[in-house]
Amino acid sequence: MCESNVYMLDNEGKQKLILEAVDKVIPAGDEIFFKNIFGQKKTVKARIKEIALVDHKIVLEENETKGK
Amino acid sequence: MCESNVYMLDNEGKQKLILEAVDKVIPAGDEIFFKNIFGQKKTVKARIKEIALVDHKIVLEENETKGK
Repeated sequence: MCESNVYMLDNEGKQKLILEAVDKVIPAGDEIFFKNIFGQKKTVKARIKEIALVDHKIVLEENETKGK
Repeated sequence: MCESNVYMLDNEGKQKLILEAVDKVIPAGDEIFFKNIFGQKKTVKARIKEIALVDHKIVLEENETKGK
């Protein structure tokens, strides 16, 4: 199967696991909705920093509040 | 392998293939950088509408120019 794990990058540059085996990723405004293959759903205020599908990895970071 | 194909949604709701077998997805401002497993790179002015990993599909849509 080809799901990815979703990680949140914290201030110290560490990646914290948010949700495993994610199938669906739907950004909406400053939030992102995730659903995994077990039917678990999660909405996170963040943006996508990088996706590496071969590594099964989606890395999020906090929204920038400064600027626009 | 677990790469996805990247599609752009046009005005008529049709999906046009942009790049196959994408591994890396890196958003940067109003653009998204893609790299596939063959080393092909592409940068597209768009935003992610939906990712369905089990379907190997990343769907993009045009940036909204109105509002923020």
